[in-house]
Amino acid sequence: MDEKHLNAGFVAVHLGYHAQENMQEYKAVCQKACKQAMELIRRQASALDVIAATVAILEDSAFTNAGIGSNLNLCGNVECDASIMEGTSLLYGAVGAIPSIRNPIKVCQALISEQKKGTLSCGRIQPCFLVGNGALQWAQDHGIKGVSMSSLLTKNSLKAYRKHKRRLSDVEQGVARTRNIEETNAQSECVTPASDPIHDISRCSPMDTVGAVCVDADGNVASAVSSGGITLKHPGRVGQASSYGCGCWAQTGRGTVPSVACSTSGCGEHLIRTLLAKECCDGVLQSDGCTTIGIQRVFKEKFLESPFLASVDAKLGGALTLSHNPDEGVELVWAHTTESMCLAYMSPNSKAPKFQISRLPTSSTAGKSLQIQGIHC
Amino acid sequence: MDEKHLNAGFVAVHLGYHAQENMQEYKAVCQKACKQAMELIRRQASALDVIAATVAILEDSAFTNAGIGSNLNLCGNVECDASIMEGTSLLYGAVGAIPSIRNPIKVCQALISEQKKGTLSCGRIQPCFLVGNGALQWAQDHGIKGVSMSSLLTKNSLKAYRKHKRRLSDVEQGVARTRNIEETNAQSECVTPASDPIHDISRCSPMDTVGAVCVDADGNVASAVSSGGITLKHPGRVGQASSYGCGCWAQTGRGTVPSVACSTSGCGEHLIRTLLAKECCDGVLQSDGCTTIGIQRVFKEKFLESPFLASVDAKLGGALTLSHNPDEGVELVWAHTTESMCLAYMSPNSKAPKFQISRLPTSSTAGKSLQIQGIHC
Repeated sequence: MDEKHLNAGFVAVHLGYHAQENMQEYKAVCQKACKQAMELIRRQASALDVIAATVAILEDSAFTNAGIGSNLNLCGNVECDASIMEGTSLLYGAVGAIPSIRNPIKVCQALISEQKKGTLSCGRIQPCFLVGNGALQWAQDHGIKGVSMSSLLTKNSLKAYRKHKRRLSDVEQGVARTRNIEETNAQSECVTPASDPIHDISRCSPMDTVGAVCVDADGNVASAVSSGGITLKHPGRVGQASSYGCGCWAQTGRGTVPSVACSTSGCGEHLIRTLLAKECCDGVLQSDGCTTIGIQRVFKEKFLESPFLASVDAKLGGALTLSHNPDEGVELVWAHTTESMCLAYMSPNSKAPKFQISRLPTSSTAGKSLQIQGIHC
Repeated sequence: MDEKHLNAGFVAVHLGYHAQENMQEYKAVCQKACKQAMELIRRQASALDVIAATVAILEDSAFTNAGIGSNLNLCGNVECDASIMEGTSLLYGAVGAIPSIRNPIKVCQALISEQKKGTLSCGRIQPCFLVGNGALQWAQDHGIKGVSMSSLLTKNSLKAYRKHKRRLSDVEQGVARTRNIEETNAQSECVTPASDPIHDISRCSPMDTVGAVCVDADGNVASAVSSGGITLKHPGRVGQASSYGCGCWAQTGRGTVPSVACSTSGCGEHLIRTLLAKECCDGVLQSDGCTTIGIQRVFKEKFLESPFLASVDAKLGGALTLSHNPDEGVELVWAHTTESMCLAYMSPNSKAPKFQISRLPTSSTAGKSLQIQGIHC
């Protein structure tokens, strides 16, 4: 391998952070995903293949809200959202509310690969976005095996589902308040809002997606995102992880224009209505590639102060964004209005992936304040 | 009613144009939809209610590719996409690949109405985008009756499905070419590309959506879109009619900023990748409310020359866009790169809706040239 390729490439991953007691597992899976990505980049795999393999590792962890271990919906089933954007072809592949697939991100990868082959017979256009059982059928027809619904459940996801269902049932029967006060106070991992400390299950369960951004050995970028969605969501609900421009965005640069890639997490409906992934990348490009300034402006003007979220009290979002320029290297910025964001990154020069939990300052309020940090490699 | 309300309001509708022989039906349904909208506007219905009722009339026509009469998918079923955006709340409601619903647009209307009620019990967030059987279930739980799949089929949609399936089967068996030459040449309504005159079924079947834009008596805007999708699409395929920013967009103005609303039609995958509805509205706002200049620039720079469609030979899109300013009235612009676009519009001062078919000049090529026209009321 020539020297140019030996030092090129970069990967960063993020995943929902929830319980302090799972910290070691979060760290392990983030590091495993980064190492796998870097190994593929060294072997000159394409950005598309790198990003899919990386996110598949995050999905395969029982501790993330994606693939196995995903939040269950109102009916006790797992339905996943995922998407990939490839920065060079600018192609996008997405699945929404897909059941019975272990790695939804691999269906997105296949959707992009198929689009590259051109139209189907009789001039039919290749789909970029498939949902539900039709998406499952397409995956199976393209060599991706379906799995049983039960194989996507874990002890923890089932336990959380039963707890939330019981609480929902109690609330809907109007008998919850007295019974649950002690129980809730005892649950240290459950961050509940001051306004309604007992009932808010959305705060007690990870709503964050997993995702990644990467630069391959040739300087092409890609981004991806995968999510089991909000706990007790309505069947068929689709969040930002499937929605174009909302869950991920990537554009490989040319000349003096840097490459940009972004993957988001948070409350799907807030991220959809603000097209956050695309806005973050546009913000970086409009700031002459100055990633931190661009992202800060986007989070302020187009998220926290966005007219599209005027009716929303707590605006919950996070974004992991990179910009890359062959001369200046990679700038990686993470920003979030959620309580915390868990991430890791690795470059060819790193001995090991860097892992970290980013948190809002203790004096800040989730959904109203911004935490932003970055590094330059 | 005071004079202000008596002269306020506007509506415009569009629908897929296909067969010359159905012209009278297209005209009748467009005019019926406009008259119904204007009646509701006079009775001071909200923009949301006006747009839903208007598009429901377009869906109810057996001659449009939306609701009853929609294109059938590869398995012979009807699965519909639809969305609404309300310009004042900036809320969006969408369904994708929904089966067994007569008026998908009414589910979108209900999704917006429910979002206005705030969170569900236990702090669960209201969905804005639902797909497949989960969307059907939600609709039924919210008072919208499901119908049998067969009640959405028409003689014409079934006939077209059987013809396309036969052709697909022939092509996939490699026996089509000789057998179909005479048949194809005899089908005057079937506009086929020069490159592959026999096999391209996408050109023989309406791919356009129906949609509408409106201003209510109080100056609030809304837009909507509804589609049965591409003929013989894969089950679960979702197009622009469900995708945020792609099928419709609306923003009610304030002060000197005009209101804008847009509804698009064409090839779903092209409209998704260019976020066409949002781009059209942004284009108008960035042109100081000069609708024609804004739209022309968007279609040139962000559609026909878009890097996001670099690999696409024929870029097929259309947009019906209005801007409104209380002092200057309504400007309505329609633009398309498709062969044609069928539309109608009405203001409170009109005795009857104006109906028209806009066509590319005969020397132009669909997917490469632009037709743009507008009116000022």
